[in-house]
Amino acid sequence: MTDNTLDPTRVVLLGLGDMGAAFGRAWLAAGRPLTAWNRTASRAEPLAAAGADVAVDPAAAVAAGRLIVTCLLDDASVGSVLEGVDLTGKDLVDITTGTPEEARARAEWATARGARFVSGGIMAVPPMVGVAESGAYTFYSGSTEAFAEHEKTLAVPTGTRFSGEDPGLAALLDVALLSAMNGMFAGITHAFALTRRSGVPLGEVAGLLEGWVGAMLSDAAGGFAERLEGGDLTTGVVSNLAMQSQGYDTQLRTAEEQGMSTELLRPYADLMERHVADGHGDQDGAGLVDRLLRDPA
Amino acid sequence: MTDNTLDPTRVVLLGLGDMGAAFGRAWLAAGRPLTAWNRTASRAEPLAAAGADVAVDPAAAVAAGRLIVTCLLDDASVGSVLEGVDLTGKDLVDITTGTPEEARARAEWATARGARFVSGGIMAVPPMVGVAESGAYTFYSGSTEAFAEHEKTLAVPTGTRFSGEDPGLAALLDVALLSAMNGMFAGITHAFALTRRSGVPLGEVAGLLEGWVGAMLSDAAGGFAERLEGGDLTTGVVSNLAMQSQGYDTQLRTAEEQGMSTELLRPYADLMERHVADGHGDQDGAGLVDRLLRDPA
Repeated sequence: MTDNTLDPTRVVLLGLGDMGAAFGRAWLAAGRPLTAWNRTASRAEPLAAAGADVAVDPAAAVAAGRLIVTCLLDDASVGSVLEGVDLTGKDLVDITTGTPEEARARAEWATARGARFVSGGIMAVPPMVGVAESGAYTFYSGSTEAFAEHEKTLAVPTGTRFSGEDPGLAALLDVALLSAMNGMFAGITHAFALTRRSGVPLGEVAGLLEGWVGAMLSDAAGGFAERLEGGDLTTGVVSNLAMQSQGYDTQLRTAEEQGMSTELLRPYADLMERHVADGHGDQDGAGLVDRLLRDPA
Repeated sequence: MTDNTLDPTRVVLLGLGDMGAAFGRAWLAAGRPLTAWNRTASRAEPLAAAGADVAVDPAAAVAAGRLIVTCLLDDASVGSVLEGVDLTGKDLVDITTGTPEEARARAEWATARGARFVSGGIMAVPPMVGVAESGAYTFYSGSTEAFAEHEKTLAVPTGTRFSGEDPGLAALLDVALLSAMNGMFAGITHAFALTRRSGVPLGEVAGLLEGWVGAMLSDAAGGFAERLEGGDLTTGVVSNLAMQSQGYDTQLRTAEEQGMSTELLRPYADLMERHVADGHGDQDGAGLVDRLLRDPA
């Protein structure tokens, strides 16, 4: 039962942490009517000054519009903030960080309360939000109809990528990219530590890292996908695990020479060694993907 | 005592594994006279067919030229292959994989035998060697004079980057970039495993990884260098460790939901948590660099 008396362009925003506030500012800057609520009311003041209506509680906020956006601490907070609030006919777009299973359970929960549900996974830090050229985007998944209806509004703070009906997909892709980024962070952290005392300016190291790791990223991402989709893990391999594993020994010994911790370097070396020991030295890193799924730890 | 009767453009190449053979083919293709030796003589046949002189032993090879390039299994092999060989007046360019300390010790060893020494660290896999547009390059460090004299020859198989007089620098930079690359590999391996069963085509995942991890690499490499050089680890921080650490929990729980190993994800999370627990939650990843140097493991 959609309440057609409500302005379909109004956004109701629950949660004004750094990210929520950035989304709110972007909507206000684009001239969208906004109703905002935050547990600590003082956080709503800057948005109120910029033209937002501030609601006294979640129920009052939700009653003010059809599109309800939640950007809270965690999934449990979404449940507690909306506890007892009438969601009939609402479209709940939840951009709170969470796991795919949490998003799926929250979708069932919202549907049972008469709402359509879309989950979002934000690929940005707050300063990128509302900046068209920042490259920021948000994965969305869940109700195709609800997404289509609000796509223009959702596209204001960041770009949008709709991933499918499974409400867990947005979180899965978000987490996959962030996990990969953290692996890269671990790698460059180790590299900066290695070169920290060498006298080579770190700005020069940064440029070298950007060039080399970037080039290898392009090669490997496409190559891994091709070999995994094709099911042939040895054709097209340029540097196989047996060779890489030898090189890894030099990398570990170099870190030891520098007297630094090898903790960030070891796990990939260990995984590679197990795979080579099992007779898969002719594969490359693509062969380690399914191994991670087989070796729960 | 340089022997000026020797052709200064001739390259003497010891070691014809995949990488050595690729360097040899590149020199022959560019019309450089080449004397080659390999312990297993049959490996020299393709180069001989392409015009190389094949030497019967290392001493005969070294006697044929002034520029001696070693591309052997490891540093110990360089010592044993050149044991008892007269190196007086030679320029030894060692592109064997090794650690910075090994390169420094090898430089002293070569200098004591009357040779000038340059160490090389190759940023390429063999198929990239001799292909101008491949982007392949080699770090060189050690004798500036010897490098300058042979720069044009060394620039034939790959691009060159001379890093300084310290013979350990080439290996250090080589290992730093390879270590960072392996961190990135660990990250995308984890990401592919996470999405493997999601129904999202892996080619699409590859494109997303390339875009996101590449963009974050550019931001982080320069940002880390700036904060480390400036000594201020909290100014300019966009996403601090306290925030990242919360997000990491979602990443670990998502991997657990998928029933996959979290081994590649944990070490950076653990390092981050230790640093946040010590009160450095307002820093970003740059703050972990010096911690790796302080926490030997």
